[in-house]
Amino acid sequence: MNDAKANRLPSEPTLHRLPWYLAYVSLLRSRDVEYVSSTAISKEINVDPSQIAKDLSVLGIKGKTRIGYEVVSLEKALRNFLGFNRKHNAVMIGVGSLGGALIADTGLERFGLNIVAGFDVNPDIVGSSIKNVPIFHIDELARRAVAYNAEIAIVAVPVEQAQAVADLAVASGIRALWNFTPFRISTSPSTVIQNTSIYAHLAVMYNRLGVDDESGVENCF
Amino acid sequence: MNDAKANRLPSEPTLHRLPWYLAYVSLLRSRDVEYVSSTAISKEINVDPSQIAKDLSVLGIKGKTRIGYEVVSLEKALRNFLGFNRKHNAVMIGVGSLGGALIADTGLERFGLNIVAGFDVNPDIVGSSIKNVPIFHIDELARRAVAYNAEIAIVAVPVEQAQAVADLAVASGIRALWNFTPFRISTSPSTVIQNTSIYAHLAVMYNRLGVDDESGVENCF
Repeated sequence: MNDAKANRLPSEPTLHRLPWYLAYVSLLRSRDVEYVSSTAISKEINVDPSQIAKDLSVLGIKGKTRIGYEVVSLEKALRNFLGFNRKHNAVMIGVGSLGGALIADTGLERFGLNIVAGFDVNPDIVGSSIKNVPIFHIDELARRAVAYNAEIAIVAVPVEQAQAVADLAVASGIRALWNFTPFRISTSPSTVIQNTSIYAHLAVMYNRLGVDDESGVENCF
Repeated sequence: MNDAKANRLPSEPTLHRLPWYLAYVSLLRSRDVEYVSSTAISKEINVDPSQIAKDLSVLGIKGKTRIGYEVVSLEKALRNFLGFNRKHNAVMIGVGSLGGALIADTGLERFGLNIVAGFDVNPDIVGSSIKNVPIFHIDELARRAVAYNAEIAIVAVPVEQAQAVADLAVASGIRALWNFTPFRISTSPSTVIQNTSIYAHLAVMYNRLGVDDESGVENCF
């Protein structure tokens, strides 16, 4: 790989697919499989083999002809490239039902997400802690975000507050927003934003379930 | 709207955008705004006004020229169309850290998701309950899914088990899978599947944060 290529950012679709490959390769490793071809990955993941080879080329490792990729090296390269083996400090803004649940989800830690503090306005929870993560008043965000060296703010507040807390987070030096609200937050291009559209996924499932299915069974909605 | 149009399924991108409009319209309603135009929604949401008008046409309601949509009716129509005001029975498969957190997140209930039971293999949690949701052994899934009239299975198991539990859920009469694992589950076309790619979103944030930002500050990864 030449320098120009190495410096080019992988596309968002590529970054979305890489964790799929990682999941499958981890599974193969747990089964003591030694090598895997892009064709074999393709059959499992339902992505074109040439797309897989192209996606994996960002890692700077190549499969061997007719043998494929070495599973252990590929897993390590993927985890390393994706940053899942490094700690990324994050703050949770909004420690209601979802925010509290996400703090309690220790699984995120295994993917490098280190939630260092939560922020809320509810006097019942400000001053408490969840799994050793302290909850502060939102007024302390600016000061604490710097002290904690937080890079990411997870936004799990009611829709009415989403834009305001996002602006506050960015003003506090936060560079990435992970938005769990259904509100479209506006940001400047220098802020990274990812929307996890829980409600959008519910909408698709409900809609498709509500339509008469192939077996002709009438749905009761 | 004619019958042919009414029977046509809205596309997945349309269904993904409708909850954004709902979030914004709910915000306007809470501020006692009476009417909203697609242009005004467009400015907030960053979607083309003609696309918004097209998306909203699936609801069968029309905006008035120069005035726009009545906020209260639009909110009601969106919530109704999206199925957020009806109960949809779901089972949680895998009651580890994430599965337990999602059961505890009462916010999903307000969007019509009714988690009726959890299933796991861990003897420490089988037989217990979370917020009154009972946790059973996975062997009981087939029987219980029918008894509970469950339509949706939320998959939050380790990657190694994802495909097997999905197959079991479908064999138990479940018609929609909400996959929280990074594993690509294979299903027949008659099963609805939605993937909530938590790890994909982390991957994008980590990658973009790891690149020197516009201000020229070198990142320490």
